[in-house]
Amino acid sequence: MATIKVPQVVPSPAEDADALLKAFQGWGTDEQAVIAVLAHRDAAQRKLISLAYEQNYNEGLIQRLQSELSGDFERAVYHWMLDPVERQALMANAATKRIQEDYAVIVEIACANSPSELLAVKQAYHGLYRRSLEEDVAARATGDLRSLLLALVSTYRYDGDDVDDALAQSEAKIIRESVADGATHHGELIRIVGTRSRAQLRATFSWFRDDEHSTSITKALPRGADPTGYSHALRSAVRCMADADKYFVKVLRNAMHKSGTDEESLTRVIVMHAEKDLKGIKDKFQKRASVALEQAIARDTSGDYKSFLVALVGSGI
Amino acid sequence: MATIKVPQVVPSPAEDADALLKAFQGWGTDEQAVIAVLAHRDAAQRKLISLAYEQNYNEGLIQRLQSELSGDFERAVYHWMLDPVERQALMANAATKRIQEDYAVIVEIACANSPSELLAVKQAYHGLYRRSLEEDVAARATGDLRSLLLALVSTYRYDGDDVDDALAQSEAKIIRESVADGATHHGELIRIVGTRSRAQLRATFSWFRDDEHSTSITKALPRGADPTGYSHALRSAVRCMADADKYFVKVLRNAMHKSGTDEESLTRVIVMHAEKDLKGIKDKFQKRASVALEQAIARDTSGDYKSFLVALVGSGI
Repeated sequence: MATIKVPQVVPSPAEDADALLKAFQGWGTDEQAVIAVLAHRDAAQRKLISLAYEQNYNEGLIQRLQSELSGDFERAVYHWMLDPVERQALMANAATKRIQEDYAVIVEIACANSPSELLAVKQAYHGLYRRSLEEDVAARATGDLRSLLLALVSTYRYDGDDVDDALAQSEAKIIRESVADGATHHGELIRIVGTRSRAQLRATFSWFRDDEHSTSITKALPRGADPTGYSHALRSAVRCMADADKYFVKVLRNAMHKSGTDEESLTRVIVMHAEKDLKGIKDKFQKRASVALEQAIARDTSGDYKSFLVALVGSGI
Repeated sequence: MATIKVPQVVPSPAEDADALLKAFQGWGTDEQAVIAVLAHRDAAQRKLISLAYEQNYNEGLIQRLQSELSGDFERAVYHWMLDPVERQALMANAATKRIQEDYAVIVEIACANSPSELLAVKQAYHGLYRRSLEEDVAARATGDLRSLLLALVSTYRYDGDDVDDALAQSEAKIIRESVADGATHHGELIRIVGTRSRAQLRATFSWFRDDEHSTSITKALPRGADPTGYSHALRSAVRCMADADKYFVKVLRNAMHKSGTDEESLTRVIVMHAEKDLKGIKDKFQKRASVALEQAIARDTSGDYKSFLVALVGSGI
């Protein structure tokens, strides 16, 4: 479920465009007015506002927002204004360019989307870049990180609930052997995580835990030195397939760690999920962190950036 | 272009169903009457005939055909009666079960289809088997054969004509190093063949030929001992991406080799392409083999099987 709050009576796109123009004019920008409009419109409404703005004032709304706003707030609004599918294609493309740092975006796009949502992102990628996401991932990653990410982005997974329980049990055993001390060859582990359906993987992970005296697979996966990012990407993929909400709670908690705020991850999760499934993530966050997500955000951020994120999370703080 | 000949005035599905019932009744089956109907109807028409037959006579047409016909003829008619997309999903599934012998089917489905056609086959696979083609290929193949086939079936390739010529040149060089004497690690070669678009691969193969004093990539690829089938699958994939018509001409010529007829491959190519692109394959076959495809088939086969294939090829022999 989404968290953004759209008013029951929404102004026309032309009225919203006019409110934005007024917010841009005069001394400085009225950021709160910008938030009051854009944080409370869904993707289709934002698109109509962009069209009305461009038609009436002969300039691109996103470009004007970029010149009026700055810092984390600007970056968050910029991403918010993009079409949700194209936004993911853009983010995936940017991530392929520094894949050893940014693989988390690719893992999330591949594992938190449904197979048909991932397909839509890949189709948008073709349109934007005249290339496939697969070839960019394959060309820019290497070794096990490549094998893993390539399988994640390319497989068109089965999306049903059917589970082969005997298979889950035998593949739990294969995973156990793959993560045993000293085992370095992850071909089978990558195959399983990279191609099985979400339902099948959950059954496999559940067998794994039962056989390992309640040690979950995420706890059993290799840690320690990880120069290529592969081990971390693998853990992220496993977590994301097992329970995407729980995975995103962890990303949010890490992003608002006492050692400093990771605005990039924070923005990414809030913007990408605010009109999709942030409600579930928010509820789990509160249970896990014993503080409401909007309060955690308000504590860790400031200014217009804070107001914007908190508005997207659906709170009036 | 298709080769099957559909009459300008087509009988109603009920009339065709009636003609088939009459062909089944009495002493023996009138195979020529079966061919006269079914070899001259397109997929949509055959589907309507099946429906009319089942509705009017309370039995499945395909099941009745299977009990009335036999041998290669029966197998060809059975495959012909399937929906073209489901037929490929069925064939791919059968191939995953003996993948070291049957990888050619998988290579053809992955490389001769457009990306959207391949996607349709994968969607049909989900529906039929409640699993993905990817997971079955990954679970049943091993080593380089797995890496290759998995990349081929899973990548959603870019389908446009845009080519990055500098990239083609640099990847031609990578391929050259991969196929150099003694080189055994094909990771990069599989990545390129498995993820680049058809247009990009053609440019790369063209650079390869220019740099290698006119030796084509297919000639340069490793031959000799091939216990896993990988080298042959790789050559097939490269050929099929470079020029699918030419690839199928080769499959047909090999299937009708003097050492004996490979009915399975012959049936597969004719049935899968007769209402799609067999015209181009047929024309190239004639140029290459100096004999018309229908004559080559007539020489190598006999009986109703021969009549049926020749009818699908669009000839009145």
